[in-house]
Parts: sequence; C-alpha cells; structure tokens
Amino acid sequence: METIAERGQTLEQQVLGLEKRIADLEQRAPEDRVALVVFSGDLDRVLGAFIIATGAAAMGQQVSMFFTFWGLSVLKKNTQFSGKTFFQKMMAAMSPGSSQSLPVSRVNYFGVGAKILRSMMRSKKVSSLEEMVSLARELGVRMIACEMSRDLMGISESELVGGLECGGVASFLGDSLKSRTSLFI
Amino acid sequence: METIAERGQTLEQQVLGLEKRIADLEQRAPEDRVALVVFSGDLDRVLGAFIIATGAAAMGQQVSMFFTFWGLSVLKKNTQFSGKTFFQKMMAAMSPGSSQSLPVSRVNYFGVGAKILRSMMRSKKVSSLEEMVSLARELGVRMIACEMSRDLMGISESELVGGLECGGVASFLGDSLKSRTSLFI
Amino acid sequence: METIAERGQTLEQQVLGLEKRIADLEQRAPEDRVALVVFSGDLDRVLGAFIIATGAAAMGQQVSMFFTFWGLSVLKKNTQFSGKTFFQKMMAAMSPGSSQSLPVSRVNYFGVGAKILRSMMRSKKVSSLEEMVSLARELGVRMIACEMSRDLMGISESELVGGLECGGVASFLGDSLKSRTSLFI
Repeated sequence: METIAERGQTLEQQVLGLEKRIADLEQRAPEDRVALVVFSGDLDRVLGAFIIATGAAAMGQQVSMFFTFWGLSVLKKNTQFSGKTFFQKMMAAMSPGSSQSLPVSRVNYFGVGAKILRSMMRSKKVSSLEEMVSLARELGVRMIACEMSRDLMGISESELVGGLECGGVASFLGDSLKSRTSLFI
Repeated sequence: METIAERGQTLEQQVLGLEKRIADLEQRAPEDRVALVVFSGDLDRVLGAFIIATGAAAMGQQVSMFFTFWGLSVLKKNTQFSGKTFFQKMMAAMSPGSSQSLPVSRVNYFGVGAKILRSMMRSKKVSSLEEMVSLARELGVRMIACEMSRDLMGISESELVGGLECGGVASFLGDSLKSRTSLFI
Repeated sequence: METIAERGQTLEQQVLGLEKRIADLEQRAPEDRVALVVFSGDLDRVLGAFIIATGAAAMGQQVSMFFTFWGLSVLKKNTQFSGKTFFQKMMAAMSPGSSQSLPVSRVNYFGVGAKILRSMMRSKKVSSLEEMVSLARELGVRMIACEMSRDLMGISESELVGGLECGGVASFLGDSLKSRTSLFI
C-alpha cells in the first residue's frame, strides 16, 4: 500500500504537470485584440473599418489595421508620378489621390455618391474619415502599410501620411493569431 | 526538513492558485459563437451570410448578425420618403426598397442578374433569401440593425421588418469577443 | 479535525477535477489554423486570399480555403456548356472561364485592369495567381469547392482543376471553429 508520503509526492508531480498545461493554455489563449485587413479603398467600407477599430480601441482592445491594395489609398496624402513605371502611373492615375477622394462602393456616380455620404455624415455630426484616422492614432491603433502592395504600385514613403509601420502579410498573421476578432474588409 | 503537514498545505495553496487560473481561462475561452457583420447589400453576399448563419445555428452555435450600411436593405419591408432629408431621400431612392430588390454584386444588369440567381435557386430547391431570414429567426439567430446607419440614412423603425434588435458597433464587438468565428461580409 | 489522510484525499479529488477542466479547455482551445471563405472572383481579392493562405501555411499553420460562388472561377480550368440549363449557360457565359480571365474589382475596363495588374506583378517578380495556387497545394493548403454553388451553377467536376475536396458550409464552419483566423474574402 502507498504511504502518505508517496501519495503526497504523486500529487506534487500531478500539480506540477497541470501547472505546465495551464501555462501553455494561457500563452495560447486569444487576447483582447482586433486585427483588420483593410483591402478595400471604398469610403463606405473604410468607414466601417475605422468605426470597428476605434470602437474596439475605446473598449480597451489592442487594434491593428493592415492596409493593403486599394486600402493604401486611405493613407495617401498625395500622388507623385515621377519614379513610377508606365503601368504604375496608370494605376496611380486611376486610383484616388488621397483619402479625400475615395469613392463609395455603390452609386458613386463619379464621386457624387461619396460627397453625399460625407455630407450626410456631417449633418448627423458623425466624425469624418479623416477625424476617425486621427482618433484611431490617439487611441493607439497600429496602422501598417503593406510593403508588397507599396512596392507593386510604386508608392513611395513621401506619398503616405506619417506615423505608419511597414510590414508584410506576416505582420497581419502574427497579430491575427493572438486576436479574438480578425476581419477582411 | 518540511513536514508532511507543511507539504500538504503548500499543495493546497498551489491547487487553489491553479483553480483561479483555470477559472480565468474558462471565462476567457471563446464560445461556440459566430458574429457576422453584414455590410453588403448584394443578394449573393447576403445569401452567403445567411447560409453561414443558419448553418452555424443548426450546428448548435449562438449566432448574431449585425446589419449595417447597405446590409440594412435586407431588413427593409418598404421605403418611406416623408421625414427624410433631401440627401436621405436620394440615398433611399438609389437603394433597394426591400430584400426583394437586392442586386447581385456582379453582372446585375439592372436587376436581371438577381432575377436569374433567384430563378436558379428556385429550380434547385434552394431556399430563397426571405425563407432563409425566416429560418434564421426560427433558429434563434439574433439580428441587430446598426443604429448609426439607420440614423445616418434616416431609416425609421416602420420601414424595417419586426423582431430586430437595435445596437451600435459595441454590440458586434461584444459578441465577436466571445466568438470563434467573426466575419465581415 | 481533518486527518492528513483525509486532506490528501480531498486534494487528490481536487486535482482530478482540475485535470478534467484543463483537458476540456485544451480541446476547446483554438488551434494554429486559418479558415478562409473565398467568395469573390476578383483577381485582386483572390490574390489577397492566396497571399494570406500561403503566408500562414509557410508559418506552419493549417490552412483551408472554401471556394464558393464567384470564387469557384479560380478553380475552373475550362467552361463546358453542354449539360447546363439555359440560366446556367448564361451565368457561365458571363463568368470567367478560368483563373486566367478573372477581372479586378476596380478599374477592370473589360480585362485591361487585370492584364495591367498581372504585368505589374511580373515586373516585380511577384508570383502569379496560378503559381500561388501551386504553392498553396505544395504547402498542404486544403482547397474545398462549395457543393451548393457547384450544383446551383451546374459546374461539373471536369470543369474544375484536380485535387479539390468538395463540401458544404459545414466544412468551413467545422474548420473555422478550430481556427484562430477566419476571413470572408
């Protein structure tokens, strides 16, 4: 028969084993984090992204936004044509020059739809996209410009607003692994 | 040397500590929940949202759908113009009057594409969007109409179908924090 | 007063209880998995999906891609009209015949936009969509063709590339339940 000392030792080992499994679970548990891919460059969808991002940050969550492809337009302060290839120039000419000229995903009618949406937002005292971007910064939302998209479209750093991080898809995936909420917008 | 009584006390404290950490993990563990943002008002995408929502609910998951922006059209039973501002009237005129007139995201050709899709679904005995909405209700799927979008577009309660909850982005984020699956559609 | 033997027994039972709760948490903990719904058939969005999928697989994650609706075009090697109903033929005629003819979501201009994007990718030595699909296969990414969409559009197996799984929405939901990242693209 097992003595009390032996049973105690067994227990001690069991507790040690459980402690390791708990520590492992703790490390793998999702954090209060939100990771967003902003792929779209449509004013309405981008507004949706920022409403979610600033809302989550205000609730105390860590938020990161990964801007890729058309989404990079949100971060542009101007468009430079020098230093771009022919196709990059064409792409730049057909893309919005800055956040101010983002179209809406529907009924845009050459920018009229976007103007109407902005005007409706003003009359309802909803923050403009540019104010939401500022608010996101103040709340500590990380904004990451996709390197591959920048390289592809030949967008130089001087075309983008300041205070951005640069990163590849691994930046998003690393954040998303730890996040409770990941969205592709 | 430690006595058996002392070792027992240490163990008891360790077990208490582990119990707290486990309780914390349990509270933070994601639940069998799905949280969907239905941003799009395109028939095809909205069908995708309802197929996922009803599928998950049938599998026993808690499902909530947060309808925002164009997605609100799914919940409209009619369009009233009185009480709307000029821009809200324009927006209403350019938006579908109800779920019956949602366009498809591609090859819509002024509604022909949507009619073809609905007809293909009928011939294959796939439930219509309206049947899926009913099924979702029966399965206990929560449907939340985004307050901010409603306010922005001046959509009154009498324009929407019954049995909806109203809520802001915090409703979605609260659900999403607990969910295993969150999608932006 | 409790004897040492009794206290030991209580401890043993507590440890057993904790062990069960830990095992339960371990089973319910999200895995290093990514589950993607590829709904879109736009070249740019599909590229985004494959960059995320191959990136995650390269980081050692289990990845599954569920191709539905327009996303099925990515998996088509050709289009057959025989055996399709009138509407299915119309849908097939208006859809891309294979991954080679996917449009871009913006500024497509009857395929010119897609050609420009592909050309920009070549000049920057970014893998083409077809190369990414091959890479995804090599990395063990599971590709699932949505049965319901196939049935709806009358797409036969001989129109699709080889090595695919077939499945319904439950395939996606099952994977998504275990995943850290689920996206609707």
